[in-house]
Amino acid sequence: MAFTFQINNNVAFKHDQRLIDKADMFKPQLYKQKIGAKSLVALNNDASFLEGVGIKRVDDIQNLASHQLTRDQKIILDFGDHQVGKFSVDISSAGSPMDAPLFCKFKFAEMPAELAHKSSDYDGWLSKSWIQEEYIHIDELPTRLVLPRRYSFRYVEITVLDTSPKWQAVFDHPLVDTETSADLSQVTTPQLNDPELEKIYQVGVKTLADCMQNVFEDGPKRDRRLWIGDLRLQALANYATFRDRDLVKRCLYLFGAMTASDGRVPANVFTTPNYVPDDTFLFDYSLFFISILADLETFQMDQTVLDDLYPIAKQQMDLSLERVNRSGKLVLDDDYPVFIDWSNDFDKETAGQAVLIYVLRQFIDLAQQKSDEDLDKYRVVLEKMIQYSKTSLYDPSRGLFISGNNHEINIASQVWMVLAKVMDSDTNQQIMQRTCDDLFPIRGIATPYMYHHVTEALFQTGLRDQAIDLLKDYWGTMIKLGADTYWEAFEPEKPDYSPYGSPILNSYCHAWSCTPVYLIQKYLTKGM
Amino acid sequence: MAFTFQINNNVAFKHDQRLIDKADMFKPQLYKQKIGAKSLVALNNDASFLEGVGIKRVDDIQNLASHQLTRDQKIILDFGDHQVGKFSVDISSAGSPMDAPLFCKFKFAEMPAELAHKSSDYDGWLSKSWIQEEYIHIDELPTRLVLPRRYSFRYVEITVLDTSPKWQAVFDHPLVDTETSADLSQVTTPQLNDPELEKIYQVGVKTLADCMQNVFEDGPKRDRRLWIGDLRLQALANYATFRDRDLVKRCLYLFGAMTASDGRVPANVFTTPNYVPDDTFLFDYSLFFISILADLETFQMDQTVLDDLYPIAKQQMDLSLERVNRSGKLVLDDDYPVFIDWSNDFDKETAGQAVLIYVLRQFIDLAQQKSDEDLDKYRVVLEKMIQYSKTSLYDPSRGLFISGNNHEINIASQVWMVLAKVMDSDTNQQIMQRTCDDLFPIRGIATPYMYHHVTEALFQTGLRDQAIDLLKDYWGTMIKLGADTYWEAFEPEKPDYSPYGSPILNSYCHAWSCTPVYLIQKYLTKGM
Repeated sequence: MAFTFQINNNVAFKHDQRLIDKADMFKPQLYKQKIGAKSLVALNNDASFLEGVGIKRVDDIQNLASHQLTRDQKIILDFGDHQVGKFSVDISSAGSPMDAPLFCKFKFAEMPAELAHKSSDYDGWLSKSWIQEEYIHIDELPTRLVLPRRYSFRYVEITVLDTSPKWQAVFDHPLVDTETSADLSQVTTPQLNDPELEKIYQVGVKTLADCMQNVFEDGPKRDRRLWIGDLRLQALANYATFRDRDLVKRCLYLFGAMTASDGRVPANVFTTPNYVPDDTFLFDYSLFFISILADLETFQMDQTVLDDLYPIAKQQMDLSLERVNRSGKLVLDDDYPVFIDWSNDFDKETAGQAVLIYVLRQFIDLAQQKSDEDLDKYRVVLEKMIQYSKTSLYDPSRGLFISGNNHEINIASQVWMVLAKVMDSDTNQQIMQRTCDDLFPIRGIATPYMYHHVTEALFQTGLRDQAIDLLKDYWGTMIKLGADTYWEAFEPEKPDYSPYGSPILNSYCHAWSCTPVYLIQKYLTKGM
Repeated sequence: MAFTFQINNNVAFKHDQRLIDKADMFKPQLYKQKIGAKSLVALNNDASFLEGVGIKRVDDIQNLASHQLTRDQKIILDFGDHQVGKFSVDISSAGSPMDAPLFCKFKFAEMPAELAHKSSDYDGWLSKSWIQEEYIHIDELPTRLVLPRRYSFRYVEITVLDTSPKWQAVFDHPLVDTETSADLSQVTTPQLNDPELEKIYQVGVKTLADCMQNVFEDGPKRDRRLWIGDLRLQALANYATFRDRDLVKRCLYLFGAMTASDGRVPANVFTTPNYVPDDTFLFDYSLFFISILADLETFQMDQTVLDDLYPIAKQQMDLSLERVNRSGKLVLDDDYPVFIDWSNDFDKETAGQAVLIYVLRQFIDLAQQKSDEDLDKYRVVLEKMIQYSKTSLYDPSRGLFISGNNHEINIASQVWMVLAKVMDSDTNQQIMQRTCDDLFPIRGIATPYMYHHVTEALFQTGLRDQAIDLLKDYWGTMIKLGADTYWEAFEPEKPDYSPYGSPILNSYCHAWSCTPVYLIQKYLTKGM
């Protein structure tokens, strides 16, 4: 995920070595595979693709070495599918002896649209260091160039910046050494009798797999790290597919080991070269530590993990409840904002209230398992928050929740109140039906993260057809636009939208978008 | 050196493994030294420097780590003198945790003027791959960045292309691991009682040393290879200083081992990763194989080298003499041009004739040592060529040599005819005096290579003061313009001239310019 930068580098953090050691115990094995490029392609105007940039095949990969390149000439390799790993290629020279270094550029792209933009035009606020592009000088040919960094891509554009008038550069045997901790052999596509949904499922599995590395990464291109909001959805999708409990435990232990000195779980942690917590805090993200622990225990009970991490979970809840007033209203401040979605164009008070209720329910389950003597206290707060929501945030005349001083009605409030089960199930269904009637088509939401919660609320309230339509309209449209994996950001009414001012910075394989595998398994198959 | 490109990639070459093995026997030891940067500097308008670009000191190197750099900020390190070697530096981050890769650029410059030009503006015919510039992404800090390529520089400009708004990049302990096969402890500056000449000598020694690597390179920045025209002058300068015979032998064996199938010695050879002859041929350069062998035998007789390489030398002479007509006139064609100088704006016929006479004299010395039964034949040709020169190329009314159909009078003709000792020594002195009177100040010559021959001709004809003036005016002016080592190209009347359209491509440490050490030792000290 991405968000407005927080800079809190005066915050001190704990470092619980016992929990770090447990995180290390669950370090995954990486599965590696050598994948060759499939063909040589060129960019192509194609209105059906993202930003109108498609590809056309120009040559067999077997003919790669017949392309002799000199100053400013380029080729684009197509690996046929999204890949995460290290790139290598043979390079030699043709013509007279090599009388100058080779200077060339490698640009790695998940989507063809990335290749249509000049990197030098990018001037956004996110670091341009994320652009997957390398300038390389090679003094001696022939060689096998092995780039040391990991890239996330399907396409590799190789530009010869210069040889000399006397010789040409020749590339051959391009290869990616892929890396993932997901065991793809564990997953088969469920029989859905709907090819579109089956494809939606498969792309979700690929998205999740490519984000499963040493931790659950948010995106293998960017930010390549462990965000707790992404982790919650990845863990759910993973239980529906790879069923890898260890990687979830590893990530939970990492967050638990490195809370701020006031006890809050940070929104993300860095894991290479060292474990370092980020100085970014989001109210709902800290709470989701509880949610992820509860989901894990639901998937398969693990007493040790519960015993180790329950104190951290309880601390998140206690810190959150300090912000609930006597009426049962959550009162947030700007220093510890609730995320809900990237957009800051809607009021998040009611959605924040609902997230806390949602997580408090899960926490009470954990507290029961732990026979926590404070259990009743939490039940009382839960009831008070529900009552406040029903009486002060629900507008019976509209049949929808309002949010903020202006009594704004937005989708996020309805969805989270439904997921939090504040009302009875009939009312929840009416709320979601009214949401479809009054608030659809969805506008102004660019994250699969928020779309996931909308879709799940539809499924949970029995609005199966509307949920399937949304799956197809949202995730299905990404596929039609050329997605091999699902994207970090997608606003169907503005397909070319980038939160960073340039699609070069977008992550086109992003964990929080993989949830169709979870939704399909949970609501459209007999599994789980 | 550089020259118009020849492309002759249909030429076949011999590969004499016996001579290659001998070349390998003389592979030198590289002396390595760790040198730290001396200060932080900034570019400065300074009309007294090359292109008006000087430097000013901005901070102690001890304070380097206090400079915390973010997007588009830069620093310039000054290593205090010209260096050839590998660069390394500590890099860490300050501020919040490193939430994006570091993207930075390292630009290595021999002269401040190189840093004032944008690499992207360069569009000349020489490969832009020679620009000493690296774009680097670093995923994990702290690290010690060790750049694997060798650079030739005094200044290193480090530009942070991006960090993120949350953190800054910090550099510390920059180091160059220098490499040379010259043993600097062998050389002391002669007492000349002239600080300017002593400085000219010292800069020449540094120039030569930095070009002495696994072979005598023409320039450690560019082309980094063994050119025979440069080698001849380097060897002479080396006898006057480091006295390293083995490196000369190694280079001669390499040229001898890889002649074209018609017997010609190529103008240069590549030595890494493999020994490969270039498909470029220059008439005078092939001949200079003989000259270098003769100079070596003069410096110290080596019968084995003479026995091994005399046949190659003889072949060069025989191939050259095929181009001498019955009158004793050398007739050249465009496929095998004579170099003399970069400039193609003067007629080279007479200078070419003189070079052949010059080398033929040296060859006859070798043929005598080898008791070659063809010796008389060569003496006859020598006499005929001298006679032709005296009668057909010397204009007694002007007291100067003419060249070409238009009877052009140029400096190169006079200088080479004097060096070839075609006339008696009184006449030679008159020719050089007239050259000074009529043809000075020199115009249109941009190479220290040609200036060397002018200066030597002045010394040889006893015009000592004029020779010293030229040493000071030419090499001394480079020093005044900021040279730590002498340049590949310098045209005093147009100091900003670059043969490549941009000074970024110029080599500012170039072997063929190091000869003041030879000239000073030979003509201004009692040594040698």
